[in-house]
Amino acid sequence: MNTHKITFQPQNRTVTVNDGENLIRAAMEAGVHINASCGGEGVCGKCRVIIENGAVDGGVSERLKPEDREKGYRLACRATVTGDVTVRIPVESVVDASVLSIPPTPRKTARIKAFDLEELKDKGLFIPPMEKVYVELPEPNAQDHLPDVTRLVSFLTLKNKEHRLGVEFPVIRKLPDILRRDRFRVTATLARPVREDGQSVIINVQPGDTTPEDYAVAVDIGTTTVYGQLIDLVSGAVLAEQADFNGQVSYGEDVISRIIFAEKGDGLNRMHEVVVATINGIIKKIVKRAGVDPDGISSITLAGNTTMTQLFLKVNPRYIRRSPYVPAASIYPAIKAVDLDLALPDHVTALVYPQVSSYVGGDIVAGVMGSGLYRTEELTLFMDIGTNAEVVVGNRDWLACAACSAGPAFEGGGIEFGMRAAKGAIEDFSIDPVTFEPMNLTIGNVRPKGICGSGLINIVAALFEAGVINNNGKYERNLATDRIRERDGIWEYVLVRQADTQIDRDLVLTEIDIENLIRAKGAIYSGCQTLLEEVGLRIQDLDRIYLAGGFGSFVDLERAMVIGLLPEMDADKITYIGNASLMGARMSAMTNRIRRDVVEVTRKMTNFELSETPSYMDHYVASLFLPHTDLELFPKLKARLDYRRSLTR
Amino acid sequence: MNTHKITFQPQNRTVTVNDGENLIRAAMEAGVHINASCGGEGVCGKCRVIIENGAVDGGVSERLKPEDREKGYRLACRATVTGDVTVRIPVESVVDASVLSIPPTPRKTARIKAFDLEELKDKGLFIPPMEKVYVELPEPNAQDHLPDVTRLVSFLTLKNKEHRLGVEFPVIRKLPDILRRDRFRVTATLARPVREDGQSVIINVQPGDTTPEDYAVAVDIGTTTVYGQLIDLVSGAVLAEQADFNGQVSYGEDVISRIIFAEKGDGLNRMHEVVVATINGIIKKIVKRAGVDPDGISSITLAGNTTMTQLFLKVNPRYIRRSPYVPAASIYPAIKAVDLDLALPDHVTALVYPQVSSYVGGDIVAGVMGSGLYRTEELTLFMDIGTNAEVVVGNRDWLACAACSAGPAFEGGGIEFGMRAAKGAIEDFSIDPVTFEPMNLTIGNVRPKGICGSGLINIVAALFEAGVINNNGKYERNLATDRIRERDGIWEYVLVRQADTQIDRDLVLTEIDIENLIRAKGAIYSGCQTLLEEVGLRIQDLDRIYLAGGFGSFVDLERAMVIGLLPEMDADKITYIGNASLMGARMSAMTNRIRRDVVEVTRKMTNFELSETPSYMDHYVASLFLPHTDLELFPKLKARLDYRRSLTR
Repeated sequence: MNTHKITFQPQNRTVTVNDGENLIRAAMEAGVHINASCGGEGVCGKCRVIIENGAVDGGVSERLKPEDREKGYRLACRATVTGDVTVRIPVESVVDASVLSIPPTPRKTARIKAFDLEELKDKGLFIPPMEKVYVELPEPNAQDHLPDVTRLVSFLTLKNKEHRLGVEFPVIRKLPDILRRDRFRVTATLARPVREDGQSVIINVQPGDTTPEDYAVAVDIGTTTVYGQLIDLVSGAVLAEQADFNGQVSYGEDVISRIIFAEKGDGLNRMHEVVVATINGIIKKIVKRAGVDPDGISSITLAGNTTMTQLFLKVNPRYIRRSPYVPAASIYPAIKAVDLDLALPDHVTALVYPQVSSYVGGDIVAGVMGSGLYRTEELTLFMDIGTNAEVVVGNRDWLACAACSAGPAFEGGGIEFGMRAAKGAIEDFSIDPVTFEPMNLTIGNVRPKGICGSGLINIVAALFEAGVINNNGKYERNLATDRIRERDGIWEYVLVRQADTQIDRDLVLTEIDIENLIRAKGAIYSGCQTLLEEVGLRIQDLDRIYLAGGFGSFVDLERAMVIGLLPEMDADKITYIGNASLMGARMSAMTNRIRRDVVEVTRKMTNFELSETPSYMDHYVASLFLPHTDLELFPKLKARLDYRRSLTR
Repeated sequence: MNTHKITFQPQNRTVTVNDGENLIRAAMEAGVHINASCGGEGVCGKCRVIIENGAVDGGVSERLKPEDREKGYRLACRATVTGDVTVRIPVESVVDASVLSIPPTPRKTARIKAFDLEELKDKGLFIPPMEKVYVELPEPNAQDHLPDVTRLVSFLTLKNKEHRLGVEFPVIRKLPDILRRDRFRVTATLARPVREDGQSVIINVQPGDTTPEDYAVAVDIGTTTVYGQLIDLVSGAVLAEQADFNGQVSYGEDVISRIIFAEKGDGLNRMHEVVVATINGIIKKIVKRAGVDPDGISSITLAGNTTMTQLFLKVNPRYIRRSPYVPAASIYPAIKAVDLDLALPDHVTALVYPQVSSYVGGDIVAGVMGSGLYRTEELTLFMDIGTNAEVVVGNRDWLACAACSAGPAFEGGGIEFGMRAAKGAIEDFSIDPVTFEPMNLTIGNVRPKGICGSGLINIVAALFEAGVINNNGKYERNLATDRIRERDGIWEYVLVRQADTQIDRDLVLTEIDIENLIRAKGAIYSGCQTLLEEVGLRIQDLDRIYLAGGFGSFVDLERAMVIGLLPEMDADKITYIGNASLMGARMSAMTNRIRRDVVEVTRKMTNFELSETPSYMDHYVASLFLPHTDLELFPKLKARLDYRRSLTR
C-alpha cells in the first residue's frame, strides 16, 4: 500500500500514513491537536485546516466560506490523504508557541503477536490430536473372513505400525457399509492419545481417500461474544471465522447474573441451550462459508471462563459464586460433541480447556498456552482485561495467577455516557492545552453518542496530562473554560455540546465516571502488584507484557500507562495477542502436545485469591490515584509532567 | 425331601422317587412300559395298574369299574406316590416273559453344572469390573478451594492408592451437588481397566455410603428367548431372574429371516427397538422384584449369537448371511447402556461378548467362558444345540469351533406335529416291544397335541431300539400293529389316536419327520467329527462333553446316543450347563479377569467353516443313519441291539 508523508505546521511534525487515511486521524497520530467536536462527521466545522502543499481528497464543505475554500481551507475530518502534503493548523486553533514545544505523549498501540503456525511446524508440534490415515484393505474371501473391524485394525497395526488401537462403537456401526462402498479402501480418523503410552482410537471411517478433508473447529466462549474458527488441519490455515453475541446476554450481562439465572428452575438447561445455539449458529456459518463437508471435522476445541465453561457443559455453576468459590472441575475429559448438543457429526470430539479456579478459567489457560507464555524464559505478565481482569505472571518454570474484579468501566459500564466500542463512540481524544477545547474522534467518523473503553482511557489520560484533572481524578475548578462545570453538585467536562452529538443533551465526562475508571484500573494494577509481590518480584522485574482481550487492540499503551492501568515500561515489550482464548483453542486443534502440556500448566499455576491476600487492599488503595500514589513507579510520565509544570509556571 | 421306593411287577424293578411323583413317570424312570395314550390326562384309561402293597394318592377314575377299584386298580397317570409301594402291571398290558428280561436302556439326563461362585471366590476372581468406594472428603474452605473433581480424585489417589484415575463427564455434571448432599461423604463407582496398566475411571458418584447397593445385570439374547438376571455384586447372588420371548420373534423365527427383515427400509432400527424393549421389560421386572434402587446398577453384560448381537447393537447384519460371511466385529468396546437405548441409569456400562465368526457368536464365547472350558485341562466338547448348533472343542491350550446348520427339528420345526416344549407336547415315550402300543407322557400331563424336541429323540430312539424303525429311519412294514400305516404314500406310526389328543386327528410320526431328525443330528455329529479330525483327534479322545442350551436339560443322554446325536460315552462325563450364554454373562459381571481372558480366548479360537471343509460332506453322509453307518462307534448300543436280536429270533 502507498504511504504518504503529512507535515503539520506550525508544529512542524511529520507523520507517515497510508493512502486514503483521514487527515484528522493523521493529526491525532502525529500528536497534533485540532479542535473537533463532532467526531468526524463534518457538522461542527471546527477542524478547519489549510492545505499548503500537495493535495487532499474531499474536505470541501458548506461550513467553509467560499473565499476560505479558495485559500485552501478544508475540514480535516472530511479530507483523505492521496499524496505527500503539508497542512497548516490556522491560527485560531493553535496554542501559543511555548505550548507547541511540549513533545506529544507518544502514541503507541501494542505490537500484535499473530498465531505462529510456522513456529509450530518448525518445532514439529503441528500434530493435530486427530489424524486421518488412508488404507487399502485386502477384500475378504472364502479363506479370509476376518470380521470387518479386525481387518481394519490388523491392517493398521501391521502396515501403519499402530499400537493398541481402540475403536469407538459408532465406527463399528458404520464400518461394514463404508468398507464396501469403495472396495475396502477407507480413510480412518485416529484420535491420538495424550500420553505416549496411551491408546489411539479410531473415531471415524470414510470411504475412499479423504485425507485432504481434515478440519477442526476452535471456539472462544466469551461472556459477551462467542468466536469460532474453522481450521484446515492439512495446511493449518483458518478457512473461515465468525463472531456472534453469546445468546446468554439477554439473561444477564455478567457471569454472576448468569449463575443466578442458572440456579433457578430450568435455568441451567436454558443457559446451556442458548450458548449451544450460538455456537451451532457459528459452526453452520463457517462450514458453509468454507464450503467443506462437515463429516471432515474431527474435533472442536472450546475455551471460556469457568462460568461460561460450566454453563456450556451444563455443570451447575452455583458454587462458583459462593464462598469458598469452588469450580466443579479443573480438567475435563474429551467429550463427544453430540453429547453437548453441538450440531456436529457423531464422531466429533470436544476438547474443553481446563480451569484453574472459579475466576481464572479456561480462557486464561488457553491464553497462556496460545501465547506461548508457558514456554518462554522471559518473566511475563499476561493480562486479559474485561469486566473481570485476569492476570498471570511467570514463565516456563512457574506460573501464578489471580482474578481482579475490575468492574465494567472498560466496557462502558458505570460510565454515564459509556458504551461498547461501536459506531459513534468517542475512541480518541486530544485537548488544546490553552483553550481546553477537545478533539473528538469517533468510531465510524459520525457524531458522538458515547464513550468506549479505549476512548475513556484516552480522554482521562489527556485531561490528566493537560492538568485538567488532578491526580485524585478531580477537575481543576479554576480553569478558563466553560467546558468544566458543576451540575447537580457533580463536576464534569463537556466533551461535545448537544448540537454536535447524536443525543439530546451534552455529552460529558463526570468525576464519578473518572472515579469508576480509577477503581477499575486500580484493581488491575494492584492485582498485578500483589501477585508479583507474593512471588517475591516487583513490577520493574517484568520482561514482557501480553495484553489479551478485544479491548487490548485499541488501547493506546502510553495513555494506559498515564492513568496507571499498565505499568510504565518500553511499549515495545508489550505485545497484544488479541483473543488469546481463541488462539489457544486454535492451537489445541493443531498440536496434540498442548493437551499433555496443559495438564502440567494447570497443575503448576498457583492461584491467588486476592480477597484473601492481606497486602492486596493496601496496594489497591495506593492505586486509586492517577497514575498512582507512588509517582516514582512512572518515571517517564513524571518527567513529562515536570516539564509541563515548568512551562506553565 | 422324602423319597419312596416303588417296585414294579412282574419286571421286579425298583426305583426311588420323590414324594408326590406321578406313578406313570416313576414307571418311565424305571424303564417299565405301561400302555398310555393320552399323555397323563386320565382320559384313555389304558394305564391301569394294581397297587399290591402300600398306597398311592389318587388314580381313582370313572374309567375304572367299581370292582376293579376294589381290587386296587388305579390309573397310573393320575396316581401320586406317598410312600413305598409295590405296583403290578396287569397281564393285558404286559409283554411275554422273554421280553421282560430285556434290560431297559438306561435313562440319564445330564449332570447339571451350576454356576460355581465359591470357586470364583476361592481363586480370588470375584472382582467385579465395577467397584464401589466410599470416601469422606475434607470440606473446602478459604484456604482449600480445590475444584470438586480434583478433590475427589486427589483423595482417592492418596488414600485409596488409586493410580491415574479418569472421570467420566456425566460424573462431573452431578458431582458438585452430590458432594454437598451429605457433607462431602460420597461413594464413587470405579470402572476397573481390562489391562493392569490401564486407567480406572469414576463412572458414578452417590451421596453417603452406598457400597452395599452394588448390582449388575446379565442378559442372554437368544433368538427365541431373552433371559436376564439381577446380580448382587456384594454377595454374588442372583437376586431375580426373568425370561421373555425375544420381541423379534414376530418378525421371523430364525436369524436369517431377521437379517432379511433388517435389510429392508427401517428394519434394522425396528429389530433393535423390539429386542431392546424385551430387555428393558426384563430389567424392569427383575429390578422391581428384587426391590433395589436402579442407581446401584453399574454394568450390564450381554451375550448373544452374532446376528442377535449385531441387531441389538444396531450394526448392519447384511454381510453375515452373504458369502464370505463376515461379521462386523469380533471385540466390541464398552458402550454406555443409554447409548443402546437400554432403560438403565446414565452411568451404566454395557459389556457385550465378542464374536468369533458370523455363526459362532458371543453366546458361544460366553459359554466357553462361563463353563470354564477355557481353563480346563480335559479335552472337552462343548455343544450348544438349537436351530444352529455350535460346537467347540479344546481345552485351556487351544480351541476350535464350528457352526452346524442343524435345522429346526429339535425345536419342533420340519416335524408334522412338532412343537416347542410346552404343555401338551409329548416329552417322553416308551413302546411295548410285543404289542407296539405306546406310552406317551406329555408336559403338564394333558392330552397330547404335538411332539417337542426331546420327545422326538425319545420316540425315535425307542422305536429304533424296539426294531420298529430300521437304521435307515424307515418303519418295518410287516409288524403286527395297525399303528404303523401308509397314508398318501408316506409311512407313519400313530402315537395317539384322535380321541385321546387335543387335536382333530391322529397324532403321528412320519418317515419324513424321522428323516428330518436324522439330518439334524447328522449335521451336528458330523460337525463334531470334522472339527476333531481337523485338529487331529477322534471322538473317542474326548474327556468330557458340555451340553448347553434350553434343549439339553430335558434330553435323555442315552437316547441321544441311540440316535447318534451324541457320541457314545459314559453319561457321567456329559455335563449339562444350562444356559451357558447367560452363565457367561453372569460371570463377566462378577470377575473382571474374564474381560482380559476373553480377548485371548476369542483370538485363539480357530473357526472352521464346515461348508468349506472338504471332509465334512463325507462325514455328514455317513451320519444319515441310526445311529451312524459305522455302528462300531456305538459299542454299547450295538451290544443291546445284538441281545435283542438274539431274543426275537
